[in-house]
Amino acid sequence: MKKILTLLASLCILAGALHAQELANFNFGGRGVQVVSPVIQGDSVTFNFRADYATYVKLSASWAPGQIDMARGANNIWSVKLPLPSPEIYTYNFVVDGVAVNDPQNILVQRDGNRFLNMLIVPGERTENYTEANRRGTVSHPWYDSKILGINRRLTVYTPYGYEQNPKKKYPVLYLLHGAGGDEEAWISMGRTAQILDNLIEKGLAEPMIVVMPNGNANQQAAQTLGIPTKPQQYDRNAIQNLPEAERMRAQNGYVMSLCEEIVPFIEKNFRVIAKPEARAIAGLSMGGGHTISASILYPQLFDYICPLSAAGSATPEQIATLKKAGVKLYFLACGDADFLFEGSKTLDKTLTEQGLDHIYYVSDGGHTWANWRLYLNTFARLLFK
Amino acid sequence: MKKILTLLASLCILAGALHAQELANFNFGGRGVQVVSPVIQGDSVTFNFRADYATYVKLSASWAPGQIDMARGANNIWSVKLPLPSPEIYTYNFVVDGVAVNDPQNILVQRDGNRFLNMLIVPGERTENYTEANRRGTVSHPWYDSKILGINRRLTVYTPYGYEQNPKKKYPVLYLLHGAGGDEEAWISMGRTAQILDNLIEKGLAEPMIVVMPNGNANQQAAQTLGIPTKPQQYDRNAIQNLPEAERMRAQNGYVMSLCEEIVPFIEKNFRVIAKPEARAIAGLSMGGGHTISASILYPQLFDYICPLSAAGSATPEQIATLKKAGVKLYFLACGDADFLFEGSKTLDKTLTEQGLDHIYYVSDGGHTWANWRLYLNTFARLLFK
Repeated sequence: MKKILTLLASLCILAGALHAQELANFNFGGRGVQVVSPVIQGDSVTFNFRADYATYVKLSASWAPGQIDMARGANNIWSVKLPLPSPEIYTYNFVVDGVAVNDPQNILVQRDGNRFLNMLIVPGERTENYTEANRRGTVSHPWYDSKILGINRRLTVYTPYGYEQNPKKKYPVLYLLHGAGGDEEAWISMGRTAQILDNLIEKGLAEPMIVVMPNGNANQQAAQTLGIPTKPQQYDRNAIQNLPEAERMRAQNGYVMSLCEEIVPFIEKNFRVIAKPEARAIAGLSMGGGHTISASILYPQLFDYICPLSAAGSATPEQIATLKKAGVKLYFLACGDADFLFEGSKTLDKTLTEQGLDHIYYVSDGGHTWANWRLYLNTFARLLFK
Repeated sequence: MKKILTLLASLCILAGALHAQELANFNFGGRGVQVVSPVIQGDSVTFNFRADYATYVKLSASWAPGQIDMARGANNIWSVKLPLPSPEIYTYNFVVDGVAVNDPQNILVQRDGNRFLNMLIVPGERTENYTEANRRGTVSHPWYDSKILGINRRLTVYTPYGYEQNPKKKYPVLYLLHGAGGDEEAWISMGRTAQILDNLIEKGLAEPMIVVMPNGNANQQAAQTLGIPTKPQQYDRNAIQNLPEAERMRAQNGYVMSLCEEIVPFIEKNFRVIAKPEARAIAGLSMGGGHTISASILYPQLFDYICPLSAAGSATPEQIATLKKAGVKLYFLACGDADFLFEGSKTLDKTLTEQGLDHIYYVSDGGHTWANWRLYLNTFARLLFK
């Protein structure tokens, strides 16, 4: 049944050009001179970037204000040497004649919304749980159908090391929510969720748990990287107040309803989980902190562990009183002291105290940053399900 | 148990700078003027890029030779309008004063080895299976321990729509191998494996199947994006011939041995698969085509479906005779007529013919490109397990 199929008609690509392009990856950025960047040596870090025709090259670094001049050296390699910042994961890019450019020598890249930025991981005690453990869990991307939101939607799910090997074991679940501008990939990439959980579980510091990271944009099926158009907003923001109550509820809290009424059952059907409030935790940052607070108010029986982080949200004394009555094993409220939402966290702490709901109010240095959200996850994950 | 924990000592990040950086994702690339790129209109596509201080901006496009001049317009937005190429997925970037820059307005980005490139998806019959279907499978990244290679290694696994909902159903498996410079993410990103399988299965054109995409670099645990150092090469290339036979086998074929002796059993233990040769297929491109041929020679009983694509590899008449005796349901050999490996494919076709092994020799237009590898997957996946 030998057949020779020659396809000529349907293709008008210029084969030579494609060929040259796609083979370029065999040659890792050579162009004659080997450039390495970034280079950590002792207490310094050096950035190197080749630009033959640039008028200027600067470094834009998340740990330093403004843009830092780089100097042209031999072979048109522009460089700058800086003191190594304290252990953390930072981001940076170069600015060439006014245009932002990533470091072509550094394959460590993260996406923040629609921006791709290089990572600089400074090793140390603070970051030791942010790099690869020896025993790793599985990260998967299942899709669930949302009747509430009318779309099929992508999830990120972390199952811990040993999940496949122990087919009888059931696990508790942390629902971990991102902020505005984020999506279902934010916590797993910028938040280093898999690395943090792998390390904590390997060291015996956290219970083996499943972590579910949904997409918190109610009109989105998946991260924009997949190219699926976002659904138009269903409701006019100004008209929401005039809707009948059930519809207003859905307009205002559609995503939280889908989380609690669709995602939780989907996970409990398709993964081996302990389907009880004492084995469910919810945590979220910024907008996701608001979702966390809303979920705890609208579904007070669902989660025994509640962790709003740098949260954009509030709760009334009555709502906290209801939550207290429902029973809470851990209420972990965290915020940076330079966060623009810091006042809101103080108000919530005060309400929790006045209503007598035992809680941890964890105030860190710094602002509304992934440095803080990684720190919070690395902290509260140890307190869950114990 | 209210506690106020203030962390001042361990952090010396400049909170303000981080704050400003990380909030930038709330504002999607505005800077006052709205830039949109690329813009497909009828038979043309326009690329727009804002660069205030650049001397020149060019477009580097995978479908056109050389670099194409862009013209500075109002608000320092540089543009070029081109005829729309025929339906396919292309890549491009801008070149600003000699430096390669991605299009900040286009979130569709793929990674080819260590290069990040923007995608241009031209819709049409050829690409209709490359975009999202309605019913999607799950993509996951489990890790397996390789005793043969001495490292823990990351896999990409696609399970088809319905896998979770049908807990009794068992599936056939396609092992799909990447080329040099690639890793376990190559087929799922550039190859559009999930989209192609989702579409083919939804349309009833392919059997529901699991697809396993390992990392084919024997000394690598995972894609470099995870930041895990590559293990040093264990063997001196020149000394391999002098090793004892078992060790030489492992030095030359360690990855293929791990695939057949470790990955296949790992998948058959942890996923619901039909563990029989007639439910196992192997396919690979370039270096992975070589791995495919090696696996079929070293383990002739394992796979009934064998698909070397633009393969860097060969087989002797005796090896093909042995394979024929073992029984093959489909031998699908594919290559582009402008591929630098085209002569090798012709030789293999000749050997298969001479040895009387029924096969398909699929010759496409073009070269050693992902355009071809997507086309091949979209073609041979329909022929598997039938």
